[in-house]
This record gives sequence, C-alpha cells and structure tokens, in this order.
Amino acid sequence: VCEGVRAVEELLRSPLAVKGALVSPALAGAPRGAALRERLDAAHVPVVEVSDREFASAAGTESPQGVLAVAAVPPRALDALDLPPRARVLVLDAIQDPGNVGTLLRTAAALGADAVLAMPGTVDLWNAKVVRSAMGALFHRPALPAGWEAFDAFVRGRGIPCWGADAHGDPVGAAGAPGALALLVGNEGAGLSDAARARCARLVSVPIAAGVESLNVAVAAGILLYQLRP
Amino acid sequence: VCEGVRAVEELLRSPLAVKGALVSPALAGAPRGAALRERLDAAHVPVVEVSDREFASAAGTESPQGVLAVAAVPPRALDALDLPPRARVLVLDAIQDPGNVGTLLRTAAALGADAVLAMPGTVDLWNAKVVRSAMGALFHRPALPAGWEAFDAFVRGRGIPCWGADAHGDPVGAAGAPGALALLVGNEGAGLSDAARARCARLVSVPIAAGVESLNVAVAAGILLYQLRP
Repeated sequence: VCEGVRAVEELLRSPLAVKGALVSPALAGAPRGAALRERLDAAHVPVVEVSDREFASAAGTESPQGVLAVAAVPPRALDALDLPPRARVLVLDAIQDPGNVGTLLRTAAALGADAVLAMPGTVDLWNAKVVRSAMGALFHRPALPAGWEAFDAFVRGRGIPCWGADAHGDPVGAAGAPGALALLVGNEGAGLSDAARARCARLVSVPIAAGVESLNVAVAAGILLYQLRP
Repeated sequence: VCEGVRAVEELLRSPLAVKGALVSPALAGAPRGAALRERLDAAHVPVVEVSDREFASAAGTESPQGVLAVAAVPPRALDALDLPPRARVLVLDAIQDPGNVGTLLRTAAALGADAVLAMPGTVDLWNAKVVRSAMGALFHRPALPAGWEAFDAFVRGRGIPCWGADAHGDPVGAAGAPGALALLVGNEGAGLSDAARARCARLVSVPIAAGVESLNVAVAAGILLYQLRP
C-alpha cells in the first residue's frame, strides 16, 4: 500500500503491477493531484472513489492527500539479483524503525547502491511507513528480506566482502574502498548483532565528536556509502 | 519538555536548568529507569509521581517510558556565540519536519558543527519532537533561531562564508573546504529559499543516481558536513 501523490507517481513510473487505487475529493486540491488522477485512468488502474472521511479511515497519514494505491510486492530472489562487478549492497541488520528503514532505502538508491537486504529483526520492507519514507526507492531498486544462511551463500558465491558500520571501527577516511562491498548497518540502539559482526571482514566508523553518542543510522549509512562509493 | 530515559539522562548531563520531572511506575521497568530516578533525586529536581494512565495523557510518545522533564530554554544570542576560527555553522532554512530538524541537530553535533541556526520558516527548535529526535544534541551545543538581518550581521562580522546545499551545485568532492563555513540547507520539498540563495557564495551538491529525486535533508547535511569538515 502506497500513499500520497508523490509516492503514487513513483509507483506508476515503476515496473510494479498496480492493482488498484483509492481516491477522495481531497486529491483534486493536492498539488499535481488532478494530473495524477488522469495518469491513473490512463494506466487503466481500477479506481474507487470515496469521501474524504472514508479515505481518512484507510489512510495511515495525518494529512492524507486523497490517494493511495495497492501494488503487488515484486518477486525478487537473492540468487537472481543482477549486480555489477563493483556492486554496493546495503545490509540492514535488525533496523526497527520504519522511518529509518525508508530513509535508508532512499539513501541507498540515491547513492547508487545496487540492492538492499533486510536481515532478521528488520521491520517489513513493505510496511506502509517504510514505503512512504522510501519515497519511491522501493519501487525501482531491488530490496528484499534475507536470512543469514542465504546471505552467506550470496556473498560467498559472488565474492563480495562484508564490512560493518561500528563506532569502534576504522575511521572510514582511512579505509579505502573494495571493488564490491556489502555494508552492514546495525540496530538503532544495539548496533550490529553478533550474527552480523561474525560476517564482517572489517569494521568502519564515521569519526564523531566526543560526548555525542551516535549518528542516526541513515545518516551514518549515507556518509559511509558516499565515502566507500566504487 | 524532554521525554524518555535517554533524553532526560542527557538533560541532566547538560548545563540546562531542570525545573521539574513527571514520572510514572513505568519508569522502574524501563532500562536504566531506576538509576535515572535516583539521579533526579540526587540533582534535587522536583519530581511529581503520577499513574501510567495520567502519564500517557501528558506524554507525546506512543510507548512512554514514564519520565519527562521540563527545563528552561537556554538564553543564547547570535552575537555572543563563542566560535573557533574554523567554525562550522549549520543553517536550517525553513526545515519543517520536527524529526528532520532533530536529526539535523544530532548530526551537526556528532560531526563537530559549532552551532545550528534556525532561520524563518523552520519548526520551533524546542518542539517536543525535535527535542526527542535530537537525542540530547540541543542540550549541549548552541542552537538558536535567527532572522536574516541578524544572520547577515553575524556572518559578515565574523567573516564566515556561506555555502548552500543544492542539487545543482558543484559536486562536494571537488569543492575543497573553506576555513570557517556556514552551510545552508533548505526545505524538504522546495530546497533553498530565495533569501538563502541570495546569501550563498557557492552551491554544493552530493552527486546522486539518475532517476532519484533527492536525499533526505539530514542525510545530505551529514555527507556535506563530513566532506567539508575543517
């Protein structure tokens, strides 16, 4: 389920199969709302019209823009991922906040990561709030859940080294960057899990000021992905 | 108003004057909750005990940890800021989402920025959600609202060049970094305002992948502050 004008625009631009949409009169008043309604019709998406009040009961946002669409979760498999030789894969290790996961997906897409993997303990990638925060990134780039055994087979089979983000790791500026890379980022409070740590050939950090506990996980991942770009 | 175990811990570590605290039985069950209660008493903070139900009506979070504290907003003035020669000042130009502003404050503190200025149109820095997302950054580092005229006098008087974050700016890797720097970041949807643009000697960007609209403002600010560190 994908909500809001911008998200539904992105959905229509993507290869995902849109099953239907729910719209309310509020859509006509939203910026680009009328144009979006035309595009839904042009794409032959079945549209159900409801009142603003009925829409509010289906919407997850506080100020709904009068449009939400339902699409099929794309069938994606780890062993079918098509990756370049200098692939960047962002690996989410038990990231629990949907807003963080959405921002991580958006960040990974913007900084050229080829895929995002959600490891055990990570919130559902297709949670409505993740979809909203991801701003369309979920619709265009591969993102899929994975277990640790499948992950091991994946990185071993493709020869992708694993690095982990950790406050006590080597400062990223000094770390250079490998050809391909799987970058593991850990839970907001607890950091990398033991399972994740055991798989990391190297730990890297963003050096931060004394007395400050940590960076937000999406900000840290952004700096690391940028620094470690191929 | 500052809510949650971690935020109140940070508040007690800060120089801010804590006026009082509200606690409920839930605090005893929260991680580090009992220790925090002892610290409140040791710091002679007036504590009012209420039921969990009463606490929930005062709390802004969905799963309250049974503690909130009230402190005085520190009196800070632009012309009294004590800045090093290679100062970094993050300037928020009409950033409207409290979560983004909080994460920007946390990011600025972690990456060593010396002050954060909230320009017209930016959400109140002491909004409860900003305080929560800032994770204590607001209590330790100077953050204050400012108008454009006062800002002009401030940067001119101290000889601080202004750079703006803009998708069409020079790629940050090629930009070098000045001695002192005021980095202006713009509204989530609209980007830098005309008022902000008019003050920027240079625009810099984080290069992003084709087809992706933008980075989250806090992620972009994090990458730029890291790249442009003194």
